[in-house]
Amino acid sequence: MSLPRMSLPYLLVEQAVKAGLLEDIGRAGDITSDSVVPEWQRATCVLASREAGVVAGLDFARAAFALIDPDIHFNVLIPDASRVAPGDNIAMIEGPARGILTAERVALNFLGPLSGIASATRGIADAIAHTEARITCTRKTTPGLRFAQKYAVRCGGGGNHRFGLDDAILIKDNHIAIAGGIIPALRAAKRAAGHLVKIEIEVETLVQLQEALAEGVDALLLDNMDLANLREAVRMISGRSIAEASGRITPETAPGIAETGVNLLSAGWLTHSAKVLDIGLDFES
Amino acid sequence: MSLPRMSLPYLLVEQAVKAGLLEDIGRAGDITSDSVVPEWQRATCVLASREAGVVAGLDFARAAFALIDPDIHFNVLIPDASRVAPGDNIAMIEGPARGILTAERVALNFLGPLSGIASATRGIADAIAHTEARITCTRKTTPGLRFAQKYAVRCGGGGNHRFGLDDAILIKDNHIAIAGGIIPALRAAKRAAGHLVKIEIEVETLVQLQEALAEGVDALLLDNMDLANLREAVRMISGRSIAEASGRITPETAPGIAETGVNLLSAGWLTHSAKVLDIGLDFES
Amino acid sequence: MSLPRMSLPYLLVEQAVKAGLLEDIGRAGDITSDSVVPEWQRATCVLASREAGVVAGLDFARAAFALIDPDIHFNVLIPDASRVAPGDNIAMIEGPARGILTAERVALNFLGPLSGIASATRGIADAIAHTEARITCTRKTTPGLRFAQKYAVRCGGGGNHRFGLDDAILIKDNHIAIAGGIIPALRAAKRAAGHLVKIEIEVETLVQLQEALAEGVDALLLDNMDLANLREAVRMISGRSIAEASGRITPETAPGIAETGVNLLSAGWLTHSAKVLDIGLDFES
Amino acid sequence: MSLPRMSLPYLLVEQAVKAGLLEDIGRAGDITSDSVVPEWQRATCVLASREAGVVAGLDFARAAFALIDPDIHFNVLIPDASRVAPGDNIAMIEGPARGILTAERVALNFLGPLSGIASATRGIADAIAHTEARITCTRKTTPGLRFAQKYAVRCGGGGNHRFGLDDAILIKDNHIAIAGGIIPALRAAKRAAGHLVKIEIEVETLVQLQEALAEGVDALLLDNMDLANLREAVRMISGRSIAEASGRITPETAPGIAETGVNLLSAGWLTHSAKVLDIGLDFES
Amino acid sequence: MSLPRMSLPYLLVEQAVKAGLLEDIGRAGDITSDSVVPEWQRATCVLASREAGVVAGLDFARAAFALIDPDIHFNVLIPDASRVAPGDNIAMIEGPARGILTAERVALNFLGPLSGIASATRGIADAIAHTEARITCTRKTTPGLRFAQKYAVRCGGGGNHRFGLDDAILIKDNHIAIAGGIIPALRAAKRAAGHLVKIEIEVETLVQLQEALAEGVDALLLDNMDLANLREAVRMISGRSIAEASGRITPETAPGIAETGVNLLSAGWLTHSAKVLDIGLDFES
Amino acid sequence: MSLPRMSLPYLLVEQAVKAGLLEDIGRAGDITSDSVVPEWQRATCVLASREAGVVAGLDFARAAFALIDPDIHFNVLIPDASRVAPGDNIAMIEGPARGILTAERVALNFLGPLSGIASATRGIADAIAHTEARITCTRKTTPGLRFAQKYAVRCGGGGNHRFGLDDAILIKDNHIAIAGGIIPALRAAKRAAGHLVKIEIEVETLVQLQEALAEGVDALLLDNMDLANLREAVRMISGRSIAEASGRITPETAPGIAETGVNLLSAGWLTHSAKVLDIGLDFES
Repeated sequence: MSLPRMSLPYLLVEQAVKAGLLEDIGRAGDITSDSVVPEWQRATCVLASREAGVVAGLDFARAAFALIDPDIHFNVLIPDASRVAPGDNIAMIEGPARGILTAERVALNFLGPLSGIASATRGIADAIAHTEARITCTRKTTPGLRFAQKYAVRCGGGGNHRFGLDDAILIKDNHIAIAGGIIPALRAAKRAAGHLVKIEIEVETLVQLQEALAEGVDALLLDNMDLANLREAVRMISGRSIAEASGRITPETAPGIAETGVNLLSAGWLTHSAKVLDIGLDFES
Repeated sequence: MSLPRMSLPYLLVEQAVKAGLLEDIGRAGDITSDSVVPEWQRATCVLASREAGVVAGLDFARAAFALIDPDIHFNVLIPDASRVAPGDNIAMIEGPARGILTAERVALNFLGPLSGIASATRGIADAIAHTEARITCTRKTTPGLRFAQKYAVRCGGGGNHRFGLDDAILIKDNHIAIAGGIIPALRAAKRAAGHLVKIEIEVETLVQLQEALAEGVDALLLDNMDLANLREAVRMISGRSIAEASGRITPETAPGIAETGVNLLSAGWLTHSAKVLDIGLDFES
Repeated sequence: MSLPRMSLPYLLVEQAVKAGLLEDIGRAGDITSDSVVPEWQRATCVLASREAGVVAGLDFARAAFALIDPDIHFNVLIPDASRVAPGDNIAMIEGPARGILTAERVALNFLGPLSGIASATRGIADAIAHTEARITCTRKTTPGLRFAQKYAVRCGGGGNHRFGLDDAILIKDNHIAIAGGIIPALRAAKRAAGHLVKIEIEVETLVQLQEALAEGVDALLLDNMDLANLREAVRMISGRSIAEASGRITPETAPGIAETGVNLLSAGWLTHSAKVLDIGLDFES
Repeated sequence: MSLPRMSLPYLLVEQAVKAGLLEDIGRAGDITSDSVVPEWQRATCVLASREAGVVAGLDFARAAFALIDPDIHFNVLIPDASRVAPGDNIAMIEGPARGILTAERVALNFLGPLSGIASATRGIADAIAHTEARITCTRKTTPGLRFAQKYAVRCGGGGNHRFGLDDAILIKDNHIAIAGGIIPALRAAKRAAGHLVKIEIEVETLVQLQEALAEGVDALLLDNMDLANLREAVRMISGRSIAEASGRITPETAPGIAETGVNLLSAGWLTHSAKVLDIGLDFES
Repeated sequence: MSLPRMSLPYLLVEQAVKAGLLEDIGRAGDITSDSVVPEWQRATCVLASREAGVVAGLDFARAAFALIDPDIHFNVLIPDASRVAPGDNIAMIEGPARGILTAERVALNFLGPLSGIASATRGIADAIAHTEARITCTRKTTPGLRFAQKYAVRCGGGGNHRFGLDDAILIKDNHIAIAGGIIPALRAAKRAAGHLVKIEIEVETLVQLQEALAEGVDALLLDNMDLANLREAVRMISGRSIAEASGRITPETAPGIAETGVNLLSAGWLTHSAKVLDIGLDFES
Repeated sequence: MSLPRMSLPYLLVEQAVKAGLLEDIGRAGDITSDSVVPEWQRATCVLASREAGVVAGLDFARAAFALIDPDIHFNVLIPDASRVAPGDNIAMIEGPARGILTAERVALNFLGPLSGIASATRGIADAIAHTEARITCTRKTTPGLRFAQKYAVRCGGGGNHRFGLDDAILIKDNHIAIAGGIIPALRAAKRAAGHLVKIEIEVETLVQLQEALAEGVDALLLDNMDLANLREAVRMISGRSIAEASGRITPETAPGIAETGVNLLSAGWLTHSAKVLDIGLDFES
């Protein structure tokens, strides 16, 4: 796709990185580097990937160095959303050695986990590339870092689900139980929803699906259905609504699920359990 | 041990949970529950574990519900640092259904990952329980949530490494290179360190270790040494300093490393890559 | 409608009211009341409307008094979203006189303008009640208080448009010009949009409308069209998309516009230029 | 007057604008511009007034663009406090189109309402220019934006009343009632006031005025008096104190009130109900 | 005086105490008390003064304990603004021992220095009690704690000068030099000042004083004048303006200066160099 | 010593200075300078010391000017940690006169007290320079400014004690009493402490000291012992632990105490009662 769409507002990046740096420097700063490294010492380093994956979060890394010392230069070699191979240099950093050492861990604490999310997303995206389905994340994110993790999912080729409780209506099993069924739940939601608010509802059976389709809804969350049921659900929906499969999506199960014809697979583990991508900071001798 | 030592300052918990809630409610709040759930509806639910592990983070979960609606009651059934089996009920929650549904995801976004860290830590702690070694975390934590993740490590039976750049001196390879060697680095650190600040240095070879021991240091980070070298290092240190092994510590490798006689194993993946513990909120019908 | 849907998260209310109080008490507090009013003095007062309108914002007023002195009791007599007549008592307040006097202005600075927005919204909502159309606000709101003003619009019987730049796509004239036309703009938006994100596009002519309909879109912003064009636009849309009329919507023009069959009227002045509702605090003698 | 006196501390402007931007970009940023506008696209635009009035708030607009993208250039053509005619270009903006579109609404949400306040103030200031009286605002301002609105009043040729509860003593009717009359209230205030704190008292009758004058006070708030009483009050005061008329000041009533000889007219509606000045952002083709 | 006037807004107290507690508990909390003190242990203690002085800041101390643990009871025995003798018990505290120990230092870090300021102020106030003069503080305060320190001065019987740059005009020597003299400086200030803003000017010679009196001004800061000049200045002012003596005011010099007939003595050292009052927390056995 | 070790993280400086500036400019800014000083006026000034001492805090002063107006140039002539004589120029400042006047007081409110702490520290450091002992501060600091005050102590040649409750264990008399003695207290602390956390214990008698030494501990706080006991304590400790003397340390008592052979003297008054260093801002004519 030719249009850029990975934007990440700097105001959000700056807020998150400042919090991370303040947490790390505490009340006394980097007492190791201040003790051991002369103030005049400069250094050149590279951010290098130790394994294959997809990069995400370079703006966070750049901000970590710049907020500690604006004299540190940060040059991106492989931009966010790109694939890296083991040993690839992602960015080059030059400046006062103290500041580089002080900011290093916070920079990596953003870059590694976000690249891990991007890499995990890309893994599933690739596994279902032969289908029409797309992988998407959930609201199972780290408190305070949702915007960053959802950005990392986009870098990995995934889509984003709701950003919060307020930007779409998602009616789940407990809502349905309290509302007294799918029909009353959907009707209440439609009465309350603004004209730019979409409504999705979770269904666990084909009977529930039938009810929801009869009432009409923007999207259907097909929760923990087996492949046969998913196929039948897709047939019943027949394009009238978005079909999202959720529950135990893994790189292994994803292709089979995607081949049922659903539009979306959503997986919480992309953001809460993806393994960090091993990226290190290497000083040049 | 009889004394409690899992304390978690409420001021820190409140700050983190408020940030998480504000992120999730956005500018319009929980439009699903507000639309579908009557204001007068109350509910009783349980936080139930879907798998075996160790609980950590109940104060965060309690705060999430209380900050959304102080009328929600939260009763702990299985306290932090306890083991749970699949199906165990961890806490009982009773109150207005809307508030419970609104706070649910944020509560779980703290409780699941923190319990995941505690469980992973407990896994290694159990695996090395026949030795004198202890498992400890690193500074490879989620920005903004280090205090919480380090608390989770303690819940799992692990110890904590530095909380930040300012509470101990840890001289790493790049510091040594810039300082011109182990001796000048250690001497500079000693000149600058306050009397309550410990000094640790990373060594990769036995020659480096010899130098550090000759100069004297509180702790030694034995980085990526093989088992033979670790055993020899422990012999050389002979109790004069704390011996910490780091590098690729996993549940599989931990017992062998611990049996070399080191005092500590440190593992970054406890905090950056531990799998979430699957905990759900079940509404009672 | 029987279900409540006016929810206003307390965390947001508290934040806004604290900021307002801190701004007003400055560094020395209420030096007038502290000088003139004995500490032991209690008072009973009523919040009374001086004119007809709709109430909105009582949670803000309650919080203002409670945050200054938790010993102040605040009893609502006429809840938010209700109509009031001149002289109606909206709430009764009892407690330490100093605290009541200190919080009074901040309480009224929320309650008056928010009730003004609700009243203005209700005025248009009533004027178009014989049609299918609904009145809605825009993003032309006071910085920092959007959530409050949008809530006030709901209290007045209106609907809410986007809460921010991030919860729906709204393609305006400048976007279209840069994208090179309606078709490329819509296609780019569709490629980028999440599955729960709706897309609306602004059109100024029936030719543009034709293009947008051909491409397909969730909602159409019919900008500054005259009544004849609006009627023709509604005919062309024929229910395939939401039709929103905007531009110079006033209580006088609204009925005619609503009668063209559009679904929505959007008016920026509801939030940026509505007259405050005159509410005062009367001390009982 | 030759000396500049419109200063607006940048620290306050930055705080308010950041809050406004964060509210608008939410958790995902400007998804419309990010989807539709290429990253490399630049644009040139003008802020143009659609109607006659007085400009106020350009520092807020400049900050909105700069905080989104420091590469956006903002050149003022008609500075704050100047009159504009319909069609006048107030500022020229050049830079990346995405950033301009993202910041546009927040910039206008400051600039329009603040210019509206300046314009309303100027309207009354002009209407009473043939007298010695000056128009001034009150504390009936938008929570969080008082400093900005008071600045806008100054831009319109008005004066500022108290900025908060702490910078002067203003004894109102309820204070007087609790204190047991004008004399005890004034004496209590004088005992407590610092030497740089002025005291003003509200009087509703000439008898009250007589009492206050006998006791001595810096300023008198003549509340809701008719023209005859105001004239008599001015005669009684005879320059010994500042005479401020308040209550239902409008452009229509202001000249008559000002002609009674009072020094000040104070009007809450300048800040809580002034109509926004219609300013738009026009992209150059 | 019978009316209370020592008010201290709780919102300001809470903000300052939270910042102090967060600074002290850092990222891991009170690891000493958590390790050594059982969770169930309760304690009773007294805040006791080790020396004679005046108490100020009990609201800060109460908040420190309450914010760490709301179960801690804090009973004031000797309220703010009271004199204490060595050994006097100021407050009794009962509750969980851990929380008391955790909050102790922050509570004392407010209470001791603020009581020190109150005591120093009282020392001078007593020394000049036979004159009409009053002691007052300046803006030479600890950044972030001005409101607290000014409150302590009031507790010691002193008055407050400006709270900031924005609540009164104080024209100093450098302003006069830039403005081109006392007359142009005063005229510029009068043109710009709001009607509730007082103007004070600093003069160093009787010639400058003559100029300022001719132009008229609310208060005169007589800077570093000797006693003869102060007496002559008071004679020249003759009640037309407030006379404030500043420069090297100490308990020793204050009586002589006050006897010249000035209205005010202002002393920066009250807030920047007063010795802490030695207050300790004694656990009852 | 050749290595620099006075580092002060700019993120902490900026936060503290912003808070100080916002407190001082309030809601209306510097109304004196804005009224009296033309916008175009520039000025050149020097920060000059009026007395002998040690400078500390120039980064705070620089930030105060830069945050008010980035066009103000600040050139350090005598850096932090240097001695100054009366009349010495510490820094030269050039830029818009308004901004310089606005920031002056906040700059001095950091620079004067911090230099006062550095000077007081240097006074004791010099008085004990003939011994092996070092002077150190405590946690008796101004809430919110601990990092700054501890930095000033380092500038004066002193060392730092704990930065908070969380970076070392310090067992005091009340902890010992609750734990049931020195042995159980030390054992509980050792069980809980991380491997980089040092443990210090307060002892008041030689018997207590004996117990602590037998159990083993990193440092011993010898509280209020007389010189004979201190000498005996040092003999008993014999280098096995750090010996810290505390209680009534003054420039007069310090040499005698230091000569007993203790390693450290700790004094709370360095940070809570040191006299400000008199530094002024002189405008060049």
